Amino acid sequence: MSNQPHDQAAPPGSSPTPPDRSTTGSGVAVPLVALGLLASAIWLIAQPTAPPVTPAAKPSAPEPRPAVAADPLPSWNDGAAKRTILDFVATVTREGSTGFVPPPERIAVFDHDGTLVCEKPLVHGMFLVDRIRALIERQPELAHEEPYATMLTGDLEFVRRLGKKYFTDLTFSVLGGVPEERLEAEARDFIRTARHPVFDVPLGDVTYQPMKELIALLRENGFTVWICSGSGVHFMRPAAAEWYGIPPEHVIASRPLTELREVEPATPDNETSPNSRLDLVVLPQLHVLNDEERKPVSIGEHIGRRPILAVGNVGTTGDIEMLRWSQSGHRPSLQLLVLHDDAEREMAYGEPQNESLDAAADYGWQVVRMATDWKRVFAKPLDRKATAPPVPPAPPVPPAPAAEPAGP
Amino acid sequence: MSNQPHDQAAPPGSSPTPPDRSTTGSGVAVPLVALGLLASAIWLIAQPTAPPVTPAAKPSAPEPRPAVAADPLPSWNDGAAKRTILDFVATVTREGSTGFVPPPERIAVFDHDGTLVCEKPLVHGMFLVDRIRALIERQPELAHEEPYATMLTGDLEFVRRLGKKYFTDLTFSVLGGVPEERLEAEARDFIRTARHPVFDVPLGDVTYQPMKELIALLRENGFTVWICSGSGVHFMRPAAAEWYGIPPEHVIASRPLTELREVEPATPDNETSPNSRLDLVVLPQLHVLNDEERKPVSIGEHIGRRPILAVGNVGTTGDIEMLRWSQSGHRPSLQLLVLHDDAEREMAYGEPQNESLDAAADYGWQVVRMATDWKRVFAKPLDRKATAPPVPPAPPVPPAPAAEPAGP
Repeated sequence: MSNQPHDQAAPPGSSPTPPDRSTTGSGVAVPLVALGLLASAIWLIAQPTAPPVTPAAKPSAPEPRPAVAADPLPSWNDGAAKRTILDFVATVTREGSTGFVPPPERIAVFDHDGTLVCEKPLVHGMFLVDRIRALIERQPELAHEEPYATMLTGDLEFVRRLGKKYFTDLTFSVLGGVPEERLEAEARDFIRTARHPVFDVPLGDVTYQPMKELIALLRENGFTVWICSGSGVHFMRPAAAEWYGIPPEHVIASRPLTELREVEPATPDNETSPNSRLDLVVLPQLHVLNDEERKPVSIGEHIGRRPILAVGNVGTTGDIEMLRWSQSGHRPSLQLLVLHDDAEREMAYGEPQNESLDAAADYGWQVVRMATDWKRVFAKPLDRKATAPPVPPAPPVPPAPAAEPAGP
Repeated sequence: MSNQPHDQAAPPGSSPTPPDRSTTGSGVAVPLVALGLLASAIWLIAQPTAPPVTPAAKPSAPEPRPAVAADPLPSWNDGAAKRTILDFVATVTREGSTGFVPPPERIAVFDHDGTLVCEKPLVHGMFLVDRIRALIERQPELAHEEPYATMLTGDLEFVRRLGKKYFTDLTFSVLGGVPEERLEAEARDFIRTARHPVFDVPLGDVTYQPMKELIALLRENGFTVWICSGSGVHFMRPAAAEWYGIPPEHVIASRPLTELREVEPATPDNETSPNSRLDLVVLPQLHVLNDEERKPVSIGEHIGRRPILAVGNVGTTGDIEMLRWSQSGHRPSLQLLVLHDDAEREMAYGEPQNESLDAAADYGWQVVRMATDWKRVFAKPLDRKATAPPVPPAPPVPPAPAAEPAGP
């Protein structure tokens, strides 16, 4: 594969069973023993109701230069990762070549937390804490019950350590009971106003600039870009629209049961519908935990085609099956795995058993090392707040390989 | 709303529970008492393995005439239904008007059987019979067991009378056990080769020409067109692509459980993947029966927006909730309900309790009467085979209203 220039840049949790059908939606009680896990860092979440902010700053488009194509991935250092991406895009779009893939089959799926955005703490988790605060205003007695008491301290990692299923169960237990459209509106409002507890910026500012450039490059080349996330769908859909311009029908995520309910009209003289309305109401019960083996199953349900590009990250082993399944098709395909090895600009963490990196080695996936593959992580450099909590203990990151040779 | 001319026409060719989680996937045994239902017509399905056929004939595009816009719906008679459709499209696309709907929210959902294609017998049912024939070649002893014995006679209505859930259960019991991609390839092959038992034409020829024109009109006006069907997804996806150019990610349908499985590579020296592959395998168990109340829930899962246009038909009451939910949004919306009142050109049947037509009257939906609203039903007129079975007994069709006034 050769590295062809491109025309322009326009940067603009786990249960390995299929459809989860035996969930404990009301399981919000925490065994006391689990509280022992509280010993580590307390993450304070500041100002969840800060004033509205403008969208994340976007770098200006590169100036056109005659005869020299602009770099479509300006935030990527020249190296193996960038070369592999450009070669792959060139291969699948070269008509007449054996690697050519027709546009309708150019499906790209991205994990979200840790792949497109900083995941410590989870952006959806911050919304959950915000909703728990609202819940406790109505039911103050809950403030001293677990897991609410700990959640109110902002220690989202505490909940995460209890397991992805626990976290997702809790999410829908707290968020359920309202119409889908209202829950999404509340999430959208939070996404537009909340600030990040570590970097003290709007949440959209902790999305990864190199990944936004990759999404733009893929769109310019006829790909359809989907998100496949373990976070809850009613948070992910507004976030995907706000931060990446991805429409709700291209967001696959964990979801609760929903139910169609009769709702009496607000105005009895409603002209267009004299009868009661029907709304989809979110029930406080986990229906699909979209993680690990469930990600390919969900993609099969929603897309019905095997993605030729799958992107995940090292952290919770949730993307291994999605990347493997993407690779098992008959088309050329590419798998990218983001490694958080940049304690200075973002975070550094691995996995206890090194599962994702081992899989990358076994299957030949392209590891994207933040520290060396990305020229910048965010659209603008971010400083940690003076009061920011320390990064919690995490498995060590494997050493980086020898410096990559300069690009072609 | 005014009737604005359109630029061009390009004619191309029940079970009311939410997520079904307590299915009896292996329940293929039929109570003997049910066999009493066999008294009515036996539908013979002829030549299920006929030679490949060319796609359905497509009418040539209308000739351009200066200053006079072509009729975008040439197979529709002037009348209330056609006017309502054209007015609705004009309203939601008129920028600056109060009824304007931005293109991303121009979501149209169509039921399939009886709405886009002749549903007697069910096209998916014919595929099921074909697969049962193949099953009995391998296990001849099943030929004398019910429901197989009756299915082999082609009497699909027999199975349908046993209930939608029974039919869907049976479908996945017979079709399960293979990778999704293989099942879809088999369905695609059947769709391209089978002939209709009543009209003795390729299956694609019994799709409704007026509906194909409506789909083309919607696309020209920035709508995204989805199918929301009670038939099985692995049949519906190839059918939607072949007959309407609708991609698999825009098909919502009933579906079985699927499972991610390790598959050993065919060639041990496979270069791109030295290890085993992962495939999604269809399990012989119903997971979602996409009908009635489940249709809005499925649309919420897949699209995440409320459709502004919903189209269903009189026959099995399966579309009432979808149309009601579509109407309950805050945008202008349109609901169409196809009535099969044309025994001469297609079929004539209603519903035992008249539920769908009653709902249309209660909620003000536009009824589309085949006999009077459609200039033609199929792309070319079809004759019944001399050996075609009689139409089975069906509830009477309510009388047509007085002749519609001529168009504007």
